[in-house]
Amino acid sequence: MPKIELSPTEALYPAPVVLVSSGNQDLANIITIAWCGVACSNPPTLTVSIRPSRHSNKIIRETGDFVLNIPTCDFLKETDICGTVSGRDKDKFSLCSFTKTASSVIKSPMIKECPANIECKVTKILSLGAHDMFMGEVVKVHRDTSILNREGNVDYSKAAPIVYNQGEYWSLGKRIGRYGFSAD
Amino acid sequence: MPKIELSPTEALYPAPVVLVSSGNQDLANIITIAWCGVACSNPPTLTVSIRPSRHSNKIIRETGDFVLNIPTCDFLKETDICGTVSGRDKDKFSLCSFTKTASSVIKSPMIKECPANIECKVTKILSLGAHDMFMGEVVKVHRDTSILNREGNVDYSKAAPIVYNQGEYWSLGKRIGRYGFSAD
Repeated sequence: MPKIELSPTEALYPAPVVLVSSGNQDLANIITIAWCGVACSNPPTLTVSIRPSRHSNKIIRETGDFVLNIPTCDFLKETDICGTVSGRDKDKFSLCSFTKTASSVIKSPMIKECPANIECKVTKILSLGAHDMFMGEVVKVHRDTSILNREGNVDYSKAAPIVYNQGEYWSLGKRIGRYGFSAD
Repeated sequence: MPKIELSPTEALYPAPVVLVSSGNQDLANIITIAWCGVACSNPPTLTVSIRPSRHSNKIIRETGDFVLNIPTCDFLKETDICGTVSGRDKDKFSLCSFTKTASSVIKSPMIKECPANIECKVTKILSLGAHDMFMGEVVKVHRDTSILNREGNVDYSKAAPIVYNQGEYWSLGKRIGRYGFSAD
């Protein structure tokens, strides 16, 4: 089939969908982010890109840390709300009936209902244009035992993350292979 | 269910799986990358993290550009090969029977068999430790008409990207919502 050419856009798919929580136990916010990824394995470093105008951008600059919470598909509506409503107008923990839980290392609280939580300390902020990219070093990881298999690893059919494809939310299908299978 | 705490790791899931091609029409390499993501919408900027020891790391520093090719699940074996075999030892285009196609703007060639190709020019390289993060500004996007719907948008059930979950390859499931649906 022929190919068509398009003007430059951020045309990458698929992407993760995460809920980034920041603030403290009294005043906290949540923002849904798909513009994120792994930057480095050691030290383990993740990136999260947030528009300068967003409420969470200001909070994370103040606290210097954030939690990357990975929702299940059961929380799709809450995930969409946290990506479309501003924390300036609404308390999103309350709006979504999410429970604030204290983190182990950092100030920003975690979302209890998400089965995976990654505590990050900001190491660098890059102003790139429409988005600021926050680089966060992972300082602690939390996993709900309900998403683990007998070996203690994540069973992704139970973790049921949301996949983002340029404006569309998708579920995972099935496992089709393991890294390195072609050498077997 | 209770949660367990783990030492810091790059525990993010799900992640994209892309084939990064670099070099020129004569000598080119491919490396499979899941540590990538969108950094900024305008200018559209993507990140790709590659270990300093990798052959592609050197090539991309020389050419100053790369293509992010998004494979379908049909190319899962080739995707695994390009993530486990070194381009110092093998010509991966030949090994995978991939076709080198000239890009429109940059020197690095595209992989014809991938239905989406994103040409990027390197704007910044950050040495973070185990990985160097290459930031690339998107300068052209190519899409195979076979993955487009009647409206000209990507039909992700046809694009069938590979999703990476910490050492496991997964397929997409189904569309479960559109961004903004909670406000309807």
